[in-house]
Amino acid sequence: MTIKVLFWAKPKDWPRYQPTLLAEFARQGMTVELINQTDDPASIDYIIYAPASPTDDLSPYIKTRLIQSLWAGPDKLIANPTLTQPLARMVDSGMAEGMIDYVVGNVLRHHLNTDVFAAAAPDQWQDGFAPPLARHRTVGFLGIGALGMACAKATQRHGFTVMGWSRSAKTDADITCFHGEKGLETILGASDIIVLLMPHTPETENLINAKTIAMMKQGASIINPGRGHLIDDDALLAALDTGHISQATLDVFRIEPLPADHPYRHHPKVLVTPHIASETRIETAVEVAVENIRRAQAGEEVLFLVDRELNY
Amino acid sequence: MTIKVLFWAKPKDWPRYQPTLLAEFARQGMTVELINQTDDPASIDYIIYAPASPTDDLSPYIKTRLIQSLWAGPDKLIANPTLTQPLARMVDSGMAEGMIDYVVGNVLRHHLNTDVFAAAAPDQWQDGFAPPLARHRTVGFLGIGALGMACAKATQRHGFTVMGWSRSAKTDADITCFHGEKGLETILGASDIIVLLMPHTPETENLINAKTIAMMKQGASIINPGRGHLIDDDALLAALDTGHISQATLDVFRIEPLPADHPYRHHPKVLVTPHIASETRIETAVEVAVENIRRAQAGEEVLFLVDRELNY
Repeated sequence: MTIKVLFWAKPKDWPRYQPTLLAEFARQGMTVELINQTDDPASIDYIIYAPASPTDDLSPYIKTRLIQSLWAGPDKLIANPTLTQPLARMVDSGMAEGMIDYVVGNVLRHHLNTDVFAAAAPDQWQDGFAPPLARHRTVGFLGIGALGMACAKATQRHGFTVMGWSRSAKTDADITCFHGEKGLETILGASDIIVLLMPHTPETENLINAKTIAMMKQGASIINPGRGHLIDDDALLAALDTGHISQATLDVFRIEPLPADHPYRHHPKVLVTPHIASETRIETAVEVAVENIRRAQAGEEVLFLVDRELNY
Repeated sequence: MTIKVLFWAKPKDWPRYQPTLLAEFARQGMTVELINQTDDPASIDYIIYAPASPTDDLSPYIKTRLIQSLWAGPDKLIANPTLTQPLARMVDSGMAEGMIDYVVGNVLRHHLNTDVFAAAAPDQWQDGFAPPLARHRTVGFLGIGALGMACAKATQRHGFTVMGWSRSAKTDADITCFHGEKGLETILGASDIIVLLMPHTPETENLINAKTIAMMKQGASIINPGRGHLIDDDALLAALDTGHISQATLDVFRIEPLPADHPYRHHPKVLVTPHIASETRIETAVEVAVENIRRAQAGEEVLFLVDRELNY
């Protein structure tokens, strides 16, 4: 039986994904018709989806048994009122590896004061300013889901003192975990570097605001590879200007691409990266997508189904 | 019996070291007279030494049983013709930890193309340029002594593909090792990022020169926290200008502080750091120095004695 799979993403992704998907379906012994457009939505069995437009109308896809997102955080799709089909997030080992590189790399960049040396005048020689040892720095992770916890553990493995926070209680054998309002105050007050890896939900909107920034250590820094909506941008800019926050490395923004005239673009204490930390890696993502379609087709449990109550 | 210990380093270090040394000698149950100057060199039992001047005259210290360097690579002291006393290098666990932070941090900085994003114009948004995964990058370590090997293993632990090179053959359970002329060509041709952690000896002078740079991959990058003399600066600058070498992060220089008019100071592809990677950490270094003096005094084997034939 041939199953019909619609690849629904930006046209530029099709030439890269088509051959990789076909090879992986073949490797799994599955016979598929893989298309990237259709005039018969009711015939589509599965959709592999990366947001093309937030207003995509999913209602005509009445037969579709699974929408497999290529994104880890399909926030916009979850908010789409036409979504009735089961939705699976992408948990791509390659994406997690890339995120770990981004997080550990930028934690070390903050730790080593790299930007201070990069900005030094030609006649400056700031010797004797070696940073403390990694174990004497505390890195706090807000968001310790699968991805956040993987990053927290890699950061701890390097040698930093690491703690994590989530809205509801969690425990972990390696990472000291806090939760709730009281726990947020504790982790913010203890951390030299804060990493944001929460999903965007009504509860996490503006999690970093004037009040929570005031709970942070003088000179703490922020790394946000999570969601742009986690930060009240005006509050962060104000804290960077007073020096209460020493620097910020930001990969995600409320509007992307970040407008050329946004204050972050010119701020000497801000590094802007173009949403690269959580980029899905095609080789590893295709394995997950095809495996999930195989599972759904075989009546087995689908991986990483989105719980639409909790929004993740 | 009171032993007489001379602390011979820059005056600015004395107020930091004096109390820490006295506390550690006391903890070891040793009675010492710790001084930072003397008019009776023949009375000195031990010297704790960090180069104050390369022309220090060591010949009057006829009774001195050990000179304990606070530096990992006491090159200048080894070259001092007045040195006849046994000399021990500093192998400070804190310094090794700091070096690992520097190396892994800057390997990740090169890997993540951080400087490219930092230099982006405000209207640029270079998405779709996520770096490859760490395991798809090869990092080559020239110099796999205790410090180089510790850095190689930490870099491998993060996920990179790592190899090492030394002048004479070495083997290691975790790291693929090469040696000699032929091995140098192999590792240079295979590495995306080269890390220099050799000592400075006549054999390693200008190890990185026009000929060895030509052996490197197009677009490879260099991190040098080892010794300034390892690099032929003109050859590196030429290769940065052609783009054959994509970037360099340099912590050590032939002349330090690096002169304000040196081309490295203004080069957009060079990050200059002020010899911070191998800074001795006082808390951990004092433990090693006192332990070595205790050993020498008790007639036990002294740790990390310099073999003056091999220069390390």
